[in-house]
Amino acid sequence: MQAASLDVQLGSRSYPIHIGSGLLDDASLFARHVGESRAAIVTNTTIAPLYLERLRAALGERVALVKILPDGEEHKNLAVLSGLYDALLEARCERSCTLVALGGGVIGDITGFAAATYQRGVSFVQVPTTLLAQVDSSVGGKTAVNHPRGKNMIGAFHQPRAVIADIDTLSTLPAREYAAGLAEVLKYGLMGDAPFHRWIGANAAAIAARDPASLIEIVRRSCENKARVVAADEREEEGGSRALLNFGHTFGHAIETATGYRTLLHGEAVAIGMVMAARFSCELGWIGADDVREITALLAGFGLPVAPPSGLDAQELLSLMRGDKKSNAGRIRLVLLRQIGEAVLSRDFPEPALVALLEAFTRMSEAATA
Amino acid sequence: MQAASLDVQLGSRSYPIHIGSGLLDDASLFARHVGESRAAIVTNTTIAPLYLERLRAALGERVALVKILPDGEEHKNLAVLSGLYDALLEARCERSCTLVALGGGVIGDITGFAAATYQRGVSFVQVPTTLLAQVDSSVGGKTAVNHPRGKNMIGAFHQPRAVIADIDTLSTLPAREYAAGLAEVLKYGLMGDAPFHRWIGANAAAIAARDPASLIEIVRRSCENKARVVAADEREEEGGSRALLNFGHTFGHAIETATGYRTLLHGEAVAIGMVMAARFSCELGWIGADDVREITALLAGFGLPVAPPSGLDAQELLSLMRGDKKSNAGRIRLVLLRQIGEAVLSRDFPEPALVALLEAFTRMSEAATA
Repeated sequence: MQAASLDVQLGSRSYPIHIGSGLLDDASLFARHVGESRAAIVTNTTIAPLYLERLRAALGERVALVKILPDGEEHKNLAVLSGLYDALLEARCERSCTLVALGGGVIGDITGFAAATYQRGVSFVQVPTTLLAQVDSSVGGKTAVNHPRGKNMIGAFHQPRAVIADIDTLSTLPAREYAAGLAEVLKYGLMGDAPFHRWIGANAAAIAARDPASLIEIVRRSCENKARVVAADEREEEGGSRALLNFGHTFGHAIETATGYRTLLHGEAVAIGMVMAARFSCELGWIGADDVREITALLAGFGLPVAPPSGLDAQELLSLMRGDKKSNAGRIRLVLLRQIGEAVLSRDFPEPALVALLEAFTRMSEAATA
Repeated sequence: MQAASLDVQLGSRSYPIHIGSGLLDDASLFARHVGESRAAIVTNTTIAPLYLERLRAALGERVALVKILPDGEEHKNLAVLSGLYDALLEARCERSCTLVALGGGVIGDITGFAAATYQRGVSFVQVPTTLLAQVDSSVGGKTAVNHPRGKNMIGAFHQPRAVIADIDTLSTLPAREYAAGLAEVLKYGLMGDAPFHRWIGANAAAIAARDPASLIEIVRRSCENKARVVAADEREEEGGSRALLNFGHTFGHAIETATGYRTLLHGEAVAIGMVMAARFSCELGWIGADDVREITALLAGFGLPVAPPSGLDAQELLSLMRGDKKSNAGRIRLVLLRQIGEAVLSRDFPEPALVALLEAFTRMSEAATA
């Protein structure tokens, strides 16, 4: 199997996800989704030397602008966004233009938000080049930039016209980034797809080796899971199922914020958050201790961290979790596991138990570094 | 007649417009539209001393934040927006909060754009206090901030939950701003409602005197016209009817940009633009010279300018019109009058004729000041 396609079903905003090898050079595929409009490619200093010229060749005469942003989550901010608007206006990109995001989650998020807001909204195509972006951030229309007070605090829902995921780009991904993407892959199994979770466990070696057929399979099944949830709850409404995609994320966001987005990759923070959420689910009597050990071992086996870095304070994490935008009126909601493959959104836990969990995990790190 | 209500029909995004006297003190009306959620009031230094305390009293315990912005179009920019995000985050406003825009078009636009993008979208209520905002900018979901290269270049479509237009606030409006709002009122008659155009002509004295019943009537009929067009074309799609609302605006935006947004109010630029569009429609043989004279006299009678300020260059205006976001691939489209009450979108004119028109109007101003 060398390619796969699926659709995100959102009525008039539906769009296809193409997954395969060699897609970056497929001029007819890009022609189909960009059409006759002018295109502005947005990428970063790391990705540009690797893949920019191939994408530029595939888009041909349409390219009106190439904007190369600095690489890194710390550049996903209003100042860099403002420079992108400047470039688009300077190149006289009009409402009919299409933005093409070539890169990982940061490029997809900031380009998508620029597309959502430039001249009150233009089309965009996602060309994700990291595993995290291919299985998660490029699908579902969430776009944003960060604010010093919190990740993704400024953003919009704006669906792409298409997602074109060339798995060849995963070959140049540093091991740490690849592993960070696998954290989100594992999330889909844990939150809603037990058969996929078992498949990952049985194929861990091929996945770790980045075997092409396995890559297509994990991207396809991850996107299917995400597309199903997004189709049911496009805008993360109160009480909607999309909140379940945040399994591991409320803990993870707090850890990312507490460490200033510098120590951990997003997927690494999510991996730690999933272990914490799994442990808490176990303490509530929902999943077994063997489940927690199996999840922890699978994450660790892919080279992911399973405990927070040292130096964090439990009360600070609690306070950050209260400020997380998924909380509501100061009450913390967590996505927990009723069983493997079934996540539930819950406010129904004693807060002292949560405090104890945070203290246990932060002490664990102190002990490990002592 | 002391009050009127109508709905903007947009399916799940439908919302009411309430027009009347004393609405600012109507706590139950605000309770109906803000509900139990926390509210952040955004207003400016001019409006706050006049109406803030009444709105605050009507909203009561819900008020989590009052943000007073500097007054003026030159502050509708990314820097001021960024300060608004800061304040919302500092006050821990969450996704469930409602922004309440108390002011004119600038406050409505920037608050609406903040609501569209804060935490990927929160609710907002428009409380327009200028005639321009009551008849135009508060209705239809267009939100934006300006960029040095052009007005409203960064924005989103985000519908309010309700528009609450208290006509009492028009009593404190400076004469120049009131007249600027009347330009947009006249636009509705000219573009799509000949009976309303005749009604305005017949009631010009009462309108100029700000007679309350006349105020409710012009706001109501303007909003009805706008709501009809918005319902048919929410997002200003290519070829959609919403473009017709830009009658007078392509000329007007070019003049505003050329004068750096400092010389003219938006409605004044639109008044000049409507005269230019009417004249051009006459030159194409569509409306009569008597129609142009009648339109010009009506606008001038309300104290509005009917020719561009001196010092503008025809070629510069042409270039700005090409860069206007309503143009497409460099070709200028104009909203012209097939007859009074029937605007059409047209690319079907000789460009030299447009150049001649721009030269005639810019020379007219030179002559007037010589």
